[in-house]
Amino acid sequence: MAQVIAERKDIDFVLHDQLNVADIVTKHDEFAEYNRKTIDMIINEARNLAVKELLPTQKEGDEAGCKLENGKVTTPESFKRVWELFKEGEWIGTHMSAEWGGQGMPHVVATAAGDYFSGANFAFMMYIGLTNGAASLIESFGTEKLKKLFLKNMNTGVWTGTMLLTEPEAGSDVGALTTTAVKNADGTYSITGNKIFISSGDHDLADNIIHATLARIEGAPAGTGGISLFAVPKIWVNDDGSLGEPNDVVCTALEEKMGIHGNATAALALGSKGKCRGYLLGEENKGMRAMFLMMNGARLHTGQQAVACASTSYLNAINYARERVQFRRADAFEKDAPAVPIIQHPDVRRMLLTSKTYVEGMRSLLYYVGLLIDKIHIAKDEKEKALLEGLLGFLTPIAKGYCTDRAYDVCNLGMQVYGGYGFIKEYPQEQLVRDTRITMIYEGTNGIQALDLLGRKTVMDGGKSMMAMAAEIQKIVNRAKEIEGLKELGEKLEAAVKKLGDAAMSLGKSMMEGKIFNALAFSYSFMEVVGDVIMGWMLLWRACIAAELLAKGTRKKDEKYLDGQVKQAHYFIKNFLPIANGKIETIMNGSVAAVEMDDDSFGGK
Amino acid sequence: MAQVIAERKDIDFVLHDQLNVADIVTKHDEFAEYNRKTIDMIINEARNLAVKELLPTQKEGDEAGCKLENGKVTTPESFKRVWELFKEGEWIGTHMSAEWGGQGMPHVVATAAGDYFSGANFAFMMYIGLTNGAASLIESFGTEKLKKLFLKNMNTGVWTGTMLLTEPEAGSDVGALTTTAVKNADGTYSITGNKIFISSGDHDLADNIIHATLARIEGAPAGTGGISLFAVPKIWVNDDGSLGEPNDVVCTALEEKMGIHGNATAALALGSKGKCRGYLLGEENKGMRAMFLMMNGARLHTGQQAVACASTSYLNAINYARERVQFRRADAFEKDAPAVPIIQHPDVRRMLLTSKTYVEGMRSLLYYVGLLIDKIHIAKDEKEKALLEGLLGFLTPIAKGYCTDRAYDVCNLGMQVYGGYGFIKEYPQEQLVRDTRITMIYEGTNGIQALDLLGRKTVMDGGKSMMAMAAEIQKIVNRAKEIEGLKELGEKLEAAVKKLGDAAMSLGKSMMEGKIFNALAFSYSFMEVVGDVIMGWMLLWRACIAAELLAKGTRKKDEKYLDGQVKQAHYFIKNFLPIANGKIETIMNGSVAAVEMDDDSFGGK
Repeated sequence: MAQVIAERKDIDFVLHDQLNVADIVTKHDEFAEYNRKTIDMIINEARNLAVKELLPTQKEGDEAGCKLENGKVTTPESFKRVWELFKEGEWIGTHMSAEWGGQGMPHVVATAAGDYFSGANFAFMMYIGLTNGAASLIESFGTEKLKKLFLKNMNTGVWTGTMLLTEPEAGSDVGALTTTAVKNADGTYSITGNKIFISSGDHDLADNIIHATLARIEGAPAGTGGISLFAVPKIWVNDDGSLGEPNDVVCTALEEKMGIHGNATAALALGSKGKCRGYLLGEENKGMRAMFLMMNGARLHTGQQAVACASTSYLNAINYARERVQFRRADAFEKDAPAVPIIQHPDVRRMLLTSKTYVEGMRSLLYYVGLLIDKIHIAKDEKEKALLEGLLGFLTPIAKGYCTDRAYDVCNLGMQVYGGYGFIKEYPQEQLVRDTRITMIYEGTNGIQALDLLGRKTVMDGGKSMMAMAAEIQKIVNRAKEIEGLKELGEKLEAAVKKLGDAAMSLGKSMMEGKIFNALAFSYSFMEVVGDVIMGWMLLWRACIAAELLAKGTRKKDEKYLDGQVKQAHYFIKNFLPIANGKIETIMNGSVAAVEMDDDSFGGK
Repeated sequence: MAQVIAERKDIDFVLHDQLNVADIVTKHDEFAEYNRKTIDMIINEARNLAVKELLPTQKEGDEAGCKLENGKVTTPESFKRVWELFKEGEWIGTHMSAEWGGQGMPHVVATAAGDYFSGANFAFMMYIGLTNGAASLIESFGTEKLKKLFLKNMNTGVWTGTMLLTEPEAGSDVGALTTTAVKNADGTYSITGNKIFISSGDHDLADNIIHATLARIEGAPAGTGGISLFAVPKIWVNDDGSLGEPNDVVCTALEEKMGIHGNATAALALGSKGKCRGYLLGEENKGMRAMFLMMNGARLHTGQQAVACASTSYLNAINYARERVQFRRADAFEKDAPAVPIIQHPDVRRMLLTSKTYVEGMRSLLYYVGLLIDKIHIAKDEKEKALLEGLLGFLTPIAKGYCTDRAYDVCNLGMQVYGGYGFIKEYPQEQLVRDTRITMIYEGTNGIQALDLLGRKTVMDGGKSMMAMAAEIQKIVNRAKEIEGLKELGEKLEAAVKKLGDAAMSLGKSMMEGKIFNALAFSYSFMEVVGDVIMGWMLLWRACIAAELLAKGTRKKDEKYLDGQVKQAHYFIKNFLPIANGKIETIMNGSVAAVEMDDDSFGGK
């Protein structure tokens, strides 16, 4: 059976050979039922559901889109059946607490399952992703009453959830929001305001929607320090759990977008009739801090959406390249030499190998990050936990910013392999480009990810987390140096890590000296080179394992896959790290014209 | 008045300060009426028409698209009026021969006017672009009778034209086509076959369409050596010029595409009732050679479409960045510091300056190429002509392949500056991304451009044209070395040109030694670094002029524009050439895993 959406062999390789997931998680009581066999079974089921049921809704979801008619939002017809299948199969709350109706699955396993789901139809999966995010907030900050009232229904897909941050004048700058909350005698708050760009904001898949909503309590300080978090149901939930009256949350419009048409991007008016109520989550004015918890999860989820689409695009491309016959081989000079499948053309192979290399390197990173979350959850002491959290924090903007950029590149390559057919709606590639594009923007634009990485996660962190990462990379470098054929790659990666450290020092120095703008002019380049080094790390790690397995002797049918792992490490480290080195040179010695130039020199006026 | 579509000051700078167009072209009788004043007048009129009439059709064209109903293709309603305005204003055949109803405008001036037109709505402009291409073929290869029959109507927009190459099994590999031609007693040919992806293939803007059609005459050799070119009218044209019967060219479908919805991409059935006739253009079996003439023009036109969209996207972005207020400045630490327009944020400035730099560098290249065509046209002797033609041939794949890639990047940056609004159809940025994407594919995918550059234009050319270019660059390097503040940039560019030469030598050597696949694995990188060096050349050239004007003293209102020219040369040469150097290193010492890897190692099966 042709691999579609994600290469199964590669998922198994990362879970078991690279990350040794079963051994790590099953040592702990909470995950005692997870072993290699159960994990593989979960992936099997996810794959079946994704390939047989969800993937077929991808195109219809794009074409039909969501509609707002007579105040009611409808999703694409094919989504309804699949939603029920996800509910029945208990795929809504995979990594949510078993205590509250979730499956309690290790994050890393849910991530692997999600590889299939998001690659099949991520506009659909956003209804689940946002539900998980909102439920996490309620679990972390809600009272016992609220948990009982909301969580089980949310974790089983009877209800869904969303995240209400953005307002017309408060996009990335969440602190500028103006939605207000006024405390009522019964302890609830009356909410009034307008939110826009609300993914999964309204729909007909579930009976109710719980909106995790940021608002400003009357008299609160300006900026992010005056924002509070509320749970605002679409339909009021009575204390006995039954549904009450509509809660004055009205969808006023759906956005027409470039992609993810299957997901309803809603503009919501809260309390336009003065009847919208919400429950405070956590403390007053501490809403931003709470929301960050969800946002970090959402950022990782965004990286996964993008990489999953890139994987689908790559597999479409490789399968197409094996079928599509055009031109004779470049080394066949006879005029009557036959035309060959385009996989035989060097530049097509460049596009395919570039795509494969990024997809697999990023898959390793995302699963590694998933496992970090599990390790934090089961950490024995605070010191270990702090170290892991630092590393997770450092890798989060890479998983979001770098991975969505590269995934978009891969989707564009996947379209390019199709030639003219890539631009045509009859084929899947152009939708993947359009859908993936949003991942570079939402959950904090990639520019904001770069600022987070350089400012908060590197300079303000004193470089601790980056050094923790460097220590992990060094382990792989040392391992590679012992393996024939990988020594040179180990040395090159080691040199790149050192240069990256120099670049970080140089940027940190600029910031300390008050030349903040000069440093920030390179925040994006910094994110790109950190990401490149991480790709080198993940790919060399894979190559070490593959080379060791090949040396030991392995099943015949795995040999070519493993040989590919070794070759793509060479490909990336020799062909992409020199480019990263060029970027590091610009970080150290480049021009800061972007910040020095007069506004008027930009023209346009 | 805000600059939209294209920065007028910059167009003037390239035409007059950089390329000295008026002096060059008006020395020649044919262009005697063109001087700075007339050229500026033409640009004024083009700008007015583009901004006031064409730009407003951009969105409607995208939304309404083209429709095939009852065998009739209709274009967006707003296009009809504008088509008449283009006819009235004589904007259809701008650079076509005055002898045959065109305006006989220098190519470089038409290119500058086209900057506004393509940036306003290139789906619309494609009806004109294809018409020009087909008319060029008839002018070059048609008999006197055919010229009289077709050209005036085509050059004045009474009729249009297209280019019928692609078939389902013959996309990039044109030589695989199967449409047949059988000679009739009256000298015409009966044509039978199916063509797909025909841009402007059918529509309701004009009374007739002349299809420049590739087909294989019965008994012709296989491959490209057996292809002939025909003029196939949609409606038969009687010898007295009047319209006769429909010529059995039937639009069987319109493609649903990612973008350029305003242009009808038709599937055409020729001769399904056995009644389609065409006239041979040129000699039998020499059709590919003839078609290449048109294709080169079409490739340059494609580069222009993309760069024009990039320019529009940039100007939208800079104007938006001045208005959109989000976040306080990065160097304002007080909590109550006011939020500022996003142009004040370093990473936004990075996106803006990157965009501006590419748009302007590419504009210089495209106008330079336009002027080359004029210089070839008016060349005094064969030697000069051959040199110029070599240079034009070398620059064509860059103008198409490199420029469309970078233009797409710029459109993506333009979307990113808008944040979430960039993804929404209400704003113009997402359409520019979708429209521009096709330019990387059609008229020969960018991978094919890279092969053309490395194989035909560099190695097979013995490096002559590349050396001719290097000599031109050296003139600018020498000039920069004499200017305070530009010496370092001159040295860096000089070093990059030298390294590029080494890379070309290295690739040529591989090919001579029969390691063709190893060389072709880097054809794309080669195109990218040639393009980067050319950007460095064009931008340093601009900076030299700007620095000289500033030193001489210039009008106050031009100072900031000129200072921007100097700064962006620093920005590009210091921040982008090091990355190109990294790519050159990979060309010289990189991994050829892409061609060495076993097909099975790519997975997917």
